[in-house]
Parts: sequence; C-alpha cells; structure tokens
Amino acid sequence: MLQQFDERNRDIIVNVAGRLTHRDQAAVSPFDSAVQGGDAVWEGLRLHDGRIFRLTEHLARLRRSARALAFETVPTDEEITEEIRRTLAANAMTDGVHIRLTLTRGVKVTSGMDPRLNQSGPTLIVLPEYKPPVYAATGITLITSSVRRPPPDCLDPKIHHANLLSSILAKIEANVAGADDALMLDQRGFVAETNATNVFCATAGARATPTATACPEGIKRVRVL
Amino acid sequence: MLQQFDERNRDIIVNVAGRLTHRDQAAVSPFDSAVQGGDAVWEGLRLHDGRIFRLTEHLARLRRSARALAFETVPTDEEITEEIRRTLAANAMTDGVHIRLTLTRGVKVTSGMDPRLNQSGPTLIVLPEYKPPVYAATGITLITSSVRRPPPDCLDPKIHHANLLSSILAKIEANVAGADDALMLDQRGFVAETNATNVFCATAGARATPTATACPEGIKRVRVL
Amino acid sequence: MLQQFDERNRDIIVNVAGRLTHRDQAAVSPFDSAVQGGDAVWEGLRLHDGRIFRLTEHLARLRRSARALAFETVPTDEEITEEIRRTLAANAMTDGVHIRLTLTRGVKVTSGMDPRLNQSGPTLIVLPEYKPPVYAATGITLITSSVRRPPPDCLDPKIHHANLLSSILAKIEANVAGADDALMLDQRGFVAETNATNVFCATAGARATPTATACPEGIKRVRVL
Amino acid sequence: MLQQFDERNRDIIVNVAGRLTHRDQAAVSPFDSAVQGGDAVWEGLRLHDGRIFRLTEHLARLRRSARALAFETVPTDEEITEEIRRTLAANAMTDGVHIRLTLTRGVKVTSGMDPRLNQSGPTLIVLPEYKPPVYAATGITLITSSVRRPPPDCLDPKIHHANLLSSILAKIEANVAGADDALMLDQRGFVAETNATNVFCATAGARATPTATACPEGIKRVRVL
Amino acid sequence: MLQQFDERNRDIIVNVAGRLTHRDQAAVSPFDSAVQGGDAVWEGLRLHDGRIFRLTEHLARLRRSARALAFETVPTDEEITEEIRRTLAANAMTDGVHIRLTLTRGVKVTSGMDPRLNQSGPTLIVLPEYKPPVYAATGITLITSSVRRPPPDCLDPKIHHANLLSSILAKIEANVAGADDALMLDQRGFVAETNATNVFCATAGARATPTATACPEGIKRVRVL
Amino acid sequence: MLQQFDERNRDIIVNVAGRLTHRDQAAVSPFDSAVQGGDAVWEGLRLHDGRIFRLTEHLARLRRSARALAFETVPTDEEITEEIRRTLAANAMTDGVHIRLTLTRGVKVTSGMDPRLNQSGPTLIVLPEYKPPVYAATGITLITSSVRRPPPDCLDPKIHHANLLSSILAKIEANVAGADDALMLDQRGFVAETNATNVFCATAGARATPTATACPEGIKRVRVL
Repeated sequence: MLQQFDERNRDIIVNVAGRLTHRDQAAVSPFDSAVQGGDAVWEGLRLHDGRIFRLTEHLARLRRSARALAFETVPTDEEITEEIRRTLAANAMTDGVHIRLTLTRGVKVTSGMDPRLNQSGPTLIVLPEYKPPVYAATGITLITSSVRRPPPDCLDPKIHHANLLSSILAKIEANVAGADDALMLDQRGFVAETNATNVFCATAGARATPTATACPEGIKRVRVL
Repeated sequence: MLQQFDERNRDIIVNVAGRLTHRDQAAVSPFDSAVQGGDAVWEGLRLHDGRIFRLTEHLARLRRSARALAFETVPTDEEITEEIRRTLAANAMTDGVHIRLTLTRGVKVTSGMDPRLNQSGPTLIVLPEYKPPVYAATGITLITSSVRRPPPDCLDPKIHHANLLSSILAKIEANVAGADDALMLDQRGFVAETNATNVFCATAGARATPTATACPEGIKRVRVL
Repeated sequence: MLQQFDERNRDIIVNVAGRLTHRDQAAVSPFDSAVQGGDAVWEGLRLHDGRIFRLTEHLARLRRSARALAFETVPTDEEITEEIRRTLAANAMTDGVHIRLTLTRGVKVTSGMDPRLNQSGPTLIVLPEYKPPVYAATGITLITSSVRRPPPDCLDPKIHHANLLSSILAKIEANVAGADDALMLDQRGFVAETNATNVFCATAGARATPTATACPEGIKRVRVL
Repeated sequence: MLQQFDERNRDIIVNVAGRLTHRDQAAVSPFDSAVQGGDAVWEGLRLHDGRIFRLTEHLARLRRSARALAFETVPTDEEITEEIRRTLAANAMTDGVHIRLTLTRGVKVTSGMDPRLNQSGPTLIVLPEYKPPVYAATGITLITSSVRRPPPDCLDPKIHHANLLSSILAKIEANVAGADDALMLDQRGFVAETNATNVFCATAGARATPTATACPEGIKRVRVL
Repeated sequence: MLQQFDERNRDIIVNVAGRLTHRDQAAVSPFDSAVQGGDAVWEGLRLHDGRIFRLTEHLARLRRSARALAFETVPTDEEITEEIRRTLAANAMTDGVHIRLTLTRGVKVTSGMDPRLNQSGPTLIVLPEYKPPVYAATGITLITSSVRRPPPDCLDPKIHHANLLSSILAKIEANVAGADDALMLDQRGFVAETNATNVFCATAGARATPTATACPEGIKRVRVL
Repeated sequence: MLQQFDERNRDIIVNVAGRLTHRDQAAVSPFDSAVQGGDAVWEGLRLHDGRIFRLTEHLARLRRSARALAFETVPTDEEITEEIRRTLAANAMTDGVHIRLTLTRGVKVTSGMDPRLNQSGPTLIVLPEYKPPVYAATGITLITSSVRRPPPDCLDPKIHHANLLSSILAKIEANVAGADDALMLDQRGFVAETNATNVFCATAGARATPTATACPEGIKRVRVL
C-alpha cells in the first residue's frame, strides 16, 4: 500500500495562490500559515473521466472547515473551481488524477501565532497528480493505534484541517507493525476512524460506523448511511 | 500586544534548506511535510548582542522533538548552527533579532500522510526578523480559553511541534474578548499554559507552575524551577 | 439583555412557606437548606393572559427533581397550585408575569449538611414579578465558556436544582466578553446548553439539539423534538 | 454522629446583613443570591475559650473564595470580625460555639442568574450555635460514595462555596448505608475527601493526604502537611 | 437473594476438558489460564423442560468473546453442545438447571502471561447445578456502586469474560449496604448495568436501557429492544 | 523472550490448598473463585541460593491485596512460608526457581459472583518451577499498546490481582508486532507500566518512573526510588 513515485508526475504544474509553476519551482512562503502551524484546511479530490467526484460536497466541507477556523475570507466555489480548471488544463489532465486542494490562512506579515498577522487573504494550493487508488480492492490490514483522535475541545474532528501529526504518529505505528493503516480510538476508547479514512463495520445484513464525534464527516460516510 | 510589521524586515534573507533568498522568493515546496500536515518542529530563538540565548538547550529540545516524531535524520547541532550563522551573516544581523527555526520532515515524493514518502532528508528553515519583545513588561491580560491542550495520547505536549491549531483557536478567543492571550486548561480542567508560553504563579514567597503534563518543557520553565 | 428593575415590582407580595409578605419583609431562614447549600429545586413559570404556560409539565419536573434529591416530602400539585394562585391574587397579577417557584429541602434544626437535620417539611417560595421576555427576538450573542457543565456523577443535569455556580461563572465570562450568554460544554467537550437554557441548531431543513446528558430536560426541548 | 437539637440554641441571636434578630425572625431575602443559586461562600469557625480557632486563615480563605467567584466587594477582615464580635456579644457566647459564617453575593434586584443584578453589596450571615464536636474521638465509619467531587472546570474545589448538593447526595448514601460519612472520589477515581472534611491516611511512620486537586485547601490540612 | 446450597447438587458430575468426574474430583490445572489470569469466557445457561434457553445465541456470544480475546481455537457449536449433552445425561438432569459454561484459553506449559505459552487447546468446563431463579419476582433493591465498569480501552464490555473483580467489588458494596445488587456506572457517570445483569428502565409507556457501551450485549437485552 | 518448556519441570510437585501432588494431578476446583472470576491475588517469587528474594515484602503486598479485595481470612506469613517450604522440599529445589504464589478467595458452594458463597477459606496455590530470568540483560523491545491500564475506580492497580486480561491483550499486541512486551498507558494517556512489570526511565544522571497511580507498587520500584 506504500505509494510509489509515478513518472508521469515528474513535470506537473502546480498552482500556489494562482501562480502556475513547475513542481520544482512551486513556492509556499515560510511566512505562510500552513508552514508555521499547519494552519490550513484541505480536501482530497479525484478526477475521473473529466469529472471531479462530488466536488460540490467537498467544497462545502472545505468552506465549513475554514469558517470553523475563523478564516477571514474564503474564495467562492466558482473561484476555487476556476483555479482547479486552470491547473488541470495546464497539465492536460482528464483522468486518474488525485488533487490535493489546500486552503491556508495565508501569508503572515511576521512570524507568530496570531491570525491578525495574516493581512493578505488565504492561499489556495492546487496539487494535481496522476495517482491510482491508494487502497487495494482486496482489503487492508489494520492495527489499533495507541494514539488517539483529538477530543472536540482541542480540535473539532469535523474540521478537515492540516494538523495531521496525531494521524501521522498512528500511521508510523502501523508502518512499524507492518500493517497498512491504523485504527484510531477516541478519548473514551471507542473506534473513531483509521489514520486516513472513515471506517464501516459490515456484518450480516447490517452496516455500522462510528457517530461523527471523533472523526471527520466523510463525504462517502454520508452517502453510505 | 499585536505585532506590527517592522520595516527593517522588508528585505531580509531567508534560509530554506540551505538556499538563501530574499523573503519574497523563499520557497517551501507544497510537497513539504510542513505544508501538508504541520509535520514539523520548531524553536523560537533570540539573538542578543551577538549571542543566541540558550542555543544549546533549544537545539536539544528541537532534537528531542524531532526524534519523538520519528524523523529519519536530524542535522547535527553544528550543521544547524552553521546555517543560522550563514543566515545572520547574510542579513548582517547582530542584535534584537528573533529567529523562527523550523525543521520539517522534508519533501514528499507525492501527497500523502505516510512518512515513508519523505525520501529526502528534513528541511531546515531559518527565518530571522528584527523583533522587539512581544510581551510588555507591564503585564498582559488573559482569558481562560474553552479550547483545551491536546492530551498526551493525541500529541505529547513535550514535543515542540507545528500543529498549532488548538493554540491558534485559543488565541482567536482571546482576540475576540479583547485580551492579550489565553490561558489553556488540560483535559481535566487544570491550568496548563497560555496559548503561547508557560505560566507561573507567584504568590507571597512562593512560585508555582503546572507540572509539564500538558505544556511544553519550556526552556525558561526549567531555569525558574 | 441585562434585565432592568421594573417599578411595578417595587411592592410585590411574596410567598415564603405560605406566609404572604411585602418583598422587603419576605424571610427565608438562615437555617433553610437553600441558604446553607443551594439545596433546593426550582422552576421558572410564565403567566400569560391568566394562564401559566405548561404548568403541569413544570410541576412534574419539579417533583422529579425533588425526588432525585431525596426530599422527604413534596407538596402535591394541588397544594403548589393553590399557593401560586393565592400569591397571584394577592398581587392582582394576570399577565406578563414570571414566577420563580422554588422548593427547598426545608429548615434545619442546626447548621449542617445532613438532610436528617431537616425536621420540618420543604419550604415553598413563590416569587412573582412583572417581567418582559428576557431574550430579544432578534437573537443573542454567545461565547463558548471555559466552565463545563457538571458530569452526571457529580450532579445529574436532569435535576433542575439551585446549585447554579457553574452557570453563574459561565455567565460572568459572557459578561466580561460582552456577549449575551455563554455556550457550555460537557466534560468531553461537546455542546451541552447555554448557561441559562437549552440550545438548538437549525440548519437547512433540520433541527438538532444535544442529547439530554449534560443539560436539563427542558420543557420546550421536549416539545421541539 | 447525627447532631441533635441543643436547647441552649432555642433563642440565639442571628446576624443577617448587620441586623441582629432572634433566630425565628432572621430573614434572608428570597432575592438573595444564596437562596437563588447557592451563590455564596462560607466558613465553619469554632469559638473556644473566648478565641476563634485560626480566624485569620479562615477569613483569608473566605476572601479567596469570594474573589474566585468574582464578588464585586468583600468586607475587610476588620468588618467581618466586628460583626462576629457583635453577634457573640449579643448571645453572651464565649466557649463551645460553632459559627457558620456565610457571605453571599447579595440581594438581586430581580430573579436571575446574572451577577450584574446584584446591585447591593454582599450579605454577611453570622450564625453562632452551641455545638459539641461533631465527630467522636473514637473514629467514624465511611462508605465510598458513587457521587464524585466536581472537576475544577465545573467548580474549583479550592473555592469554599455553598453549592453543596454533591456532598449532600454523598451524605445521603452514607445515611442509607448506615455509615457516618462518605468518602468521595475525584473524576479519575482517586480519593479526594469525605463529604464534609479532608481525609488523611496514617500508616506506620507516614502520613498522606490527597493533593488539593479535588478537595478544599483545608485549614487543618495545611497545618498537618 | 443470597443463594443457598442445594442438597441435590451434592454429588453432581462436572465436565472439565471432557473428563466427567464427581464435583469433588473435578480438576482444573493450576497452569490453566483461568486460574492464572481469569483468562476465560463464559455463559450462564438455563435448562428448562429439557431445553436450553436460547442456546444458539449464547454459543454465538461465547464464540465472539473468545475470538475477541484471540483464542487460537474455539470448539464448534456441535462439539460444545455434545459436551453439554453428555454432562446433563451423566446427571440425569432435565429441568430447573443452571449451567455455568466456561471456555478458558487452556493449559500453559509454564506460568506466565504470554498466550503463546498455551500450547494445548482451550479448556471447556460444563458445570450444571439445580438452581431456582436467583432473583425474586417481587423485585430487588439496588445501591449505586462507587466501582465503575471498565472502559472499552481496558477490556471491552461486549466480551463476556471471567475477569469479574470489578463486579465482585460492586457486589461487596451491595452486601455491606444490605442491598441485593449494585448498579454500576460507566466512566462518564452514566448507568451501565448492575454487577450481574442488564438494567431496563420502564416508565409509563416506554422502556429504556443503556446503550451497549459499558455493559455486555445481554441476550435478553436484544430481545427486549 | 518467549519462554520454553524446561524438562526439569516435567514432574514437579504442586501445592494446592495444602495437597502436594504431581503437576498433572494438581486440582483447582471449578467452583474455585480463581476459575470463576480471576478472583485471586498472587506474587511471583524467586528462589536463589536457598533464599527467596524479598519474601517479607512480597507477603506483605499479597496480604494488602487480599484485604483490599475483602477476603474473609488470609493465612499468616508463617503459614504461607511453611507451605512454600514444604513444596520446595518435596521438589528438592534450592536454586534458580520461580514460584507462582496464588491466593484465591476459595471454593464457592455454588456458581455465582457473591463472595458470601465462599464458605470455606481461601485457597493457597504454590507453583514452583525451574525458570531462568525471563528478560535478557541486553534489553527488550517494546510497543505502546492501545490497551490501557484499568482506572482505580474499576480495579485499583495497587492490588496485585489475577484479572490479567488487559495485560494479556496488550501482550498479544506486542506478539503480533514482534516486540518483546508492551508499554501500557493510563486513562489520561501517560505511561503506566509494561504489561508485565514497572518501567523506569534512565537519562543522564536521573531516574524516573510513573507515580503508582496506574501501576502496581512494584517491590523493585520501591527499592529503586
């Protein structure tokens, strides 16, 4: 399940704040909120046969996430869609593509935690790559991680943010144990999600999934329920 | 207490992965772990009269933090010190300077959470700015935030990492209430620290500070105790 | 939203344990359980056009609350209703009235926590005042308080009791921040209620409210669901 | 251990807000914060041989408690001491006396939780009674209550307040089980205190007591440690 | 409700690992996992009029429990049913019988916690006794225990295991208080179950029971809901 | 670190309730509390050169554990020591021996949780085996288990009991991951102990170990501190 470098991505064009550049020239400022504190929200989109899967739902969640973090301004769906379109066109991509769409709080005038230092609008990053499905259809192996999902009074799991260290630590445990991914529990010890995605339990004639208390409101999750 | 832009910083030279460039050209890759997940550790250093305050302690904590996050390689103190020296020299800075020293897990070969995608070493960012002390000597006003510090089974508070959203949300509460900073509690409801620094309680003849269970092991904290 | 003194209430008649007196002569004993430990239950009633809104439901909740606190005896609905009627008649009140109906565990034979020291029955207090609706129809502003609702193993939130300090502390935080009221979270960090009332979340086509785990079973709450 | 009515207390004089009256005439207003929400702090004092045991420490704790609850004004030690003196003189009491000293947030202009409705200063209540020591020297029996002490984010246990319902519920459990008092645990399940007092554990050559995280800072507790 | 010794059980035949012996000769090895760590699962069955009540459901739960504890092998329903049949036949029992059916992880080659030391299959114990219903139809008295149900991250309450000390401690509290059984709470302070069985709350026209988060999935529980 | 069967133990004599038998005949009753609920306490002793290491401390802890579980009677140190002596003599063991010393609540008159069904005294089991040290001097590898130590309100970790399922589940996680043992956290997420022993942290010039809140009071632990 370890992703490999795909040669087709060697010369992709990346969009950072509207600037389209070769991936090796793409520049996020060290003053950007994402670099300074993971202060960003994001969505993973898939382009299949010229269409982005459930784009509307993803943009709605991106907007809810950004608002929950009190971003001053958030681009409209039309503006974001146009940037995605420009980026895909620059790469002549139409199928089999994964897009890492990131919206950061923007560039700060000086290093610091205070959002009032963000005096220019948010930074939109469109990162498209040719990428086959990450999970095999044959299933994956999971460990239960000792790392827990953050409780809602630390960081609401409904926000799809870029503070991923808890999940990365869980993923490292899975790597060490030779498993594909890690199941993560909430603070009370109940199953929440894996380090990367929602989890469903299918038994004879029934389907169950954790309530969305310690896991994101997955787009697919809503569809299944 | 809101920091202002300092004109002396308009043309500073920034060091990203050894490349010294004007701040406006400084480029962190969108594939960098810091951008993708706040997957980085950092220290705030102060240069005073040609010397960096407690550099050895700060580098030791940076190293402990990086190891706790299982960074594959960490540059030596000598290597880091040399990069700091080069950067300060390029700016001809000798006094009144704050350095945001960041070490990210490095650049990924493709978007994704898995640290095994980080196939090139960590990224060191040296960001020096002229900056007066942030806190006034006359004291600051605090609110108690409703946002709690993450518990150790989510993200060990002893790691000085760049997943700052909890603290940023607390800071936003302080801003809204018109206070300078926010006191943050741990999961049990005890005082942990402010959104930005350790907290001490001085009463007649005694000095107290929270045990380091939900707050970083501040350099100054160790000195005071 | 700060209530003002209403001149019509200057000479109201108050009922304490059946004695009808001018408000300035109304006497609760310092040996009363309410004074000693907030050891009382209460309801807020509204008299509109000669009728008390949902009186039956309020008296049922008052009774459940008193029983949950193991009050030895609780007056019947008829007895309580008669005392309310006498009090309203003494004040010639028929409309626009709020009644603070309190039932304490009664007067103790000596200071102390032990309910066995309450050797005379409960004390019923009927406190009617002319009072316009407290909340403006245009909505209110809320902060999220750092003070949490008590967990059920400390004091069951389904009991409508007179130990209001947690709520008062949350209200003080709201006052300091210039907001109308404060949203309070439960021990896990989920929204419970405001310091004064149940909270509902209305989004397009749906209505949600916290489960009654850390908030009272509001009379209106039951109606809405 | 059940206290009995002491005939010497039948005609004691009680002090409510400076008014000295027979106990049967003592009048706390139903608008008083103590009646409405247990919104008061208190101390239990003992008069022995003309002197009040550790009066200074008790008044200091009363003041700390009132300040933690943000009472607008608190009488000085001198003012409180003078009211105690007047009350004892009126009763000609010099020995074997317990004083329930209560300071409420004061009388509200109208029913309601908001402290801004308390437009006249705090109410001081001095309630002196002849009372032998409550606990027998031969020891007491304890059960462990299922009721827990409130966590610090609900109501700081260091505040010696009059929201006693948790303790009263624990005492009821002890009564039902035929024990003298109840041991109470904190939220994590560790011993905190009894429903009425600090607890110490004396083993061969050592003495232990819970850290003051979920119990008041007992005056005697500080002396013993 | 205290069970008495029933003379009809003086010479019953017990089945341990397939060996049928008089109860006084029945031998569980001190190397057995049940003896060393309560490392076993069990079911309580009732034989009524020649039939075992809901045997299929009980065996399914036994199997789920054993699998959740990672027992290497679990006998088939047919094998277990045959051992039960043999044991009942040896005792000529057909009615009014309670069977304690236990499946341990088996006998270890040496003392120790490691399941890899269990190199011979699980041990099945069939313990049939004449036993009238334990609970009177007239109802039972309950206290609320101070002992809590283990949280799911210690030991999943859905596993019907033989680590009964928490429940035994709760039962001791009930015995001391003179009650029949004890109500047990979960870690948050909500009602979970009694020390021995699921609990239902029947009010006018409604029936409620705790969600199966801190209590076993009772066979009867599923039927009632 | 997986223990192997030691041929010298093939014919050891085991002591169950005073009866000395070959290990294959040793018989613990299926009515014994250990079998029914892991309702037992135990100590691991080491015989070296004719002497048992810290026997007095181990017996004192065994007694404290049994009392904390409210065992009706506990044999004296002399009685226990004599049973150990008899068993060692029957095996002619003098060195390199590990003794699993177990004290159960005894044999019940009928299946059931109630300790009042234990009408005959406790059962002492002395299980001596030749056993080299389990841990290599070169160190062991640890994972951090997702299984937590029980909180004190479920089962006090200071009791050295035989409800080992939490630890066994953690050990299984270690086995699956290929590690020697598992580090276990307490409910708050702090390090408690391994599944089998206390843990110490040795850094330059200092030694640390968790406070004994979620781990047994190890005999060695006390010596080191």
